[in-house]
Amino acid sequence: MSKLLTKSEWSALFPKLKYVLSDCDGVLWNGDRAIEGAREFLGTLRQNGKRVCFVTNNSTKSREQILSKCLKLKFEAELSDVYGTAYATAAYLKMLGVGSVYLIGSPAIYHEITSLGIKCTGLGPDELDGNWNSWLNVKLEEGIQAVVAGFDEHFSLQKVCRAASYLLNPDCHFIVTNRDQSLPSERKDLVLPGTGCIISCLETAAGRPPIVVGKPYPTMIELLKKQFPDLDPENTLFIGDRLNTDIELGRRQGFKTLLVETGVHNREDIDPLKAPTYYLPSLNDICGFIG
Amino acid sequence: MSKLLTKSEWSALFPKLKYVLSDCDGVLWNGDRAIEGAREFLGTLRQNGKRVCFVTNNSTKSREQILSKCLKLKFEAELSDVYGTAYATAAYLKMLGVGSVYLIGSPAIYHEITSLGIKCTGLGPDELDGNWNSWLNVKLEEGIQAVVAGFDEHFSLQKVCRAASYLLNPDCHFIVTNRDQSLPSERKDLVLPGTGCIISCLETAAGRPPIVVGKPYPTMIELLKKQFPDLDPENTLFIGDRLNTDIELGRRQGFKTLLVETGVHNREDIDPLKAPTYYLPSLNDICGFIG
Repeated sequence: MSKLLTKSEWSALFPKLKYVLSDCDGVLWNGDRAIEGAREFLGTLRQNGKRVCFVTNNSTKSREQILSKCLKLKFEAELSDVYGTAYATAAYLKMLGVGSVYLIGSPAIYHEITSLGIKCTGLGPDELDGNWNSWLNVKLEEGIQAVVAGFDEHFSLQKVCRAASYLLNPDCHFIVTNRDQSLPSERKDLVLPGTGCIISCLETAAGRPPIVVGKPYPTMIELLKKQFPDLDPENTLFIGDRLNTDIELGRRQGFKTLLVETGVHNREDIDPLKAPTYYLPSLNDICGFIG
Repeated sequence: MSKLLTKSEWSALFPKLKYVLSDCDGVLWNGDRAIEGAREFLGTLRQNGKRVCFVTNNSTKSREQILSKCLKLKFEAELSDVYGTAYATAAYLKMLGVGSVYLIGSPAIYHEITSLGIKCTGLGPDELDGNWNSWLNVKLEEGIQAVVAGFDEHFSLQKVCRAASYLLNPDCHFIVTNRDQSLPSERKDLVLPGTGCIISCLETAAGRPPIVVGKPYPTMIELLKKQFPDLDPENTLFIGDRLNTDIELGRRQGFKTLLVETGVHNREDIDPLKAPTYYLPSLNDICGFIG
């Protein structure tokens, strides 16, 4: 069962920690506002020799862009602390030896993929128009070895047509950044569809499931472990605001997990079978413990 | 188990029949060619006082458009004999008392919905551009009572954003024409995404399942029963070429079912647990029995 993180719990946990992996949106900031106390909390961790990493499912920002957001909001950070799904997907493609990709995604992921020397088509609005009879004349590229999908403002059925056609080849990899159903929105009357919606659509067309790079799947942790081989359940805390991605990833890895209630989920949403180790209204509360 | 429909089987079945419900594509015609014998068969049924209805999943044609195809191919038909998912969806909305709809769909379904006096927005490309920050300013209509989805060439995440936002209201109905994963394509290297892809995407964004009007779901039969209250398993035959839509619908309703092998499936595709009552190479074979 989950418990409220108290000062004494925190005092017992703190000395054991070497790594603190934190989600960004809803934990450290909301939109362009840093969440109160988050900066001080991470600062204290660093001063005490803990390694802080930023682990986000956001596929619309490159590693550099996430770093620059950290710095703009005055979170101390270096490039090697930042793990986003755009970067992680590119690194994963490189590991697989993929040379040519059809992408449904953002300029950021295009940048990360091409930066590693991988050929990439599909960025921006599809050239086919809205008359589906014209789709029958679509020209497919030769030699596509992977279909990659992340968040794409220009998502369309024309793109689905191309992606699913490439995926008819059983050797073509199907790799996606994440399955988050929605993007965070300050308007409570609005659902901003997330990458997960794109993936469901593609999966139905292709008739096969993708490999998911983002939380709660283990690919980003596998990449982190390449950088930090001693990252393990005993010395790692995962902090997040989403039970089904952040907390679920931490739980599957055996890490200690902390749900903060400044983003999507709160303690009432907890499924006892998939509960975080701790919950807390906000990172600001820990600042009081450390003080 | 399924059996071949013989002359003696047919002679025993024929007097009991009052209603014959038939799929169109692959049963009565293929593309723009009528299937041999189909016209004569339906003509004989009518001469003997049987009621013939056309029941199709195609959501991109209005009732009038399907009727006009029947007449063009010289099938005797009246508007009230025709059940397509565009019309059936509109009729279902009317039955529910819905007055205002947000539509992801074709001009045909827009026509059917507005013809019944129901207000409908959403036809054609969304007015929001590809910059998702602008979606945050989307103006939602007041009083939308149902989100309706069918095949839409202009499908986009902007549309998903609107649809899922309306569906935040638990009283807003979520109604879709069908879940066919792909459209028929003569190019074997191409997957043409069908309405089912759109529905998977919407379902993920909305976090709830839709009501499906098309075969094999019962909504079209429920509408038929309003017009023909004595339609029942004892007096009804369903004819189709697809096991997972036509035959499955007939089977679930307890109707007698006949698979004809002039379209998608044939006798080798039959799952013994979901078998049609009869199979036959073509409707032309029955003409010989009646003659």
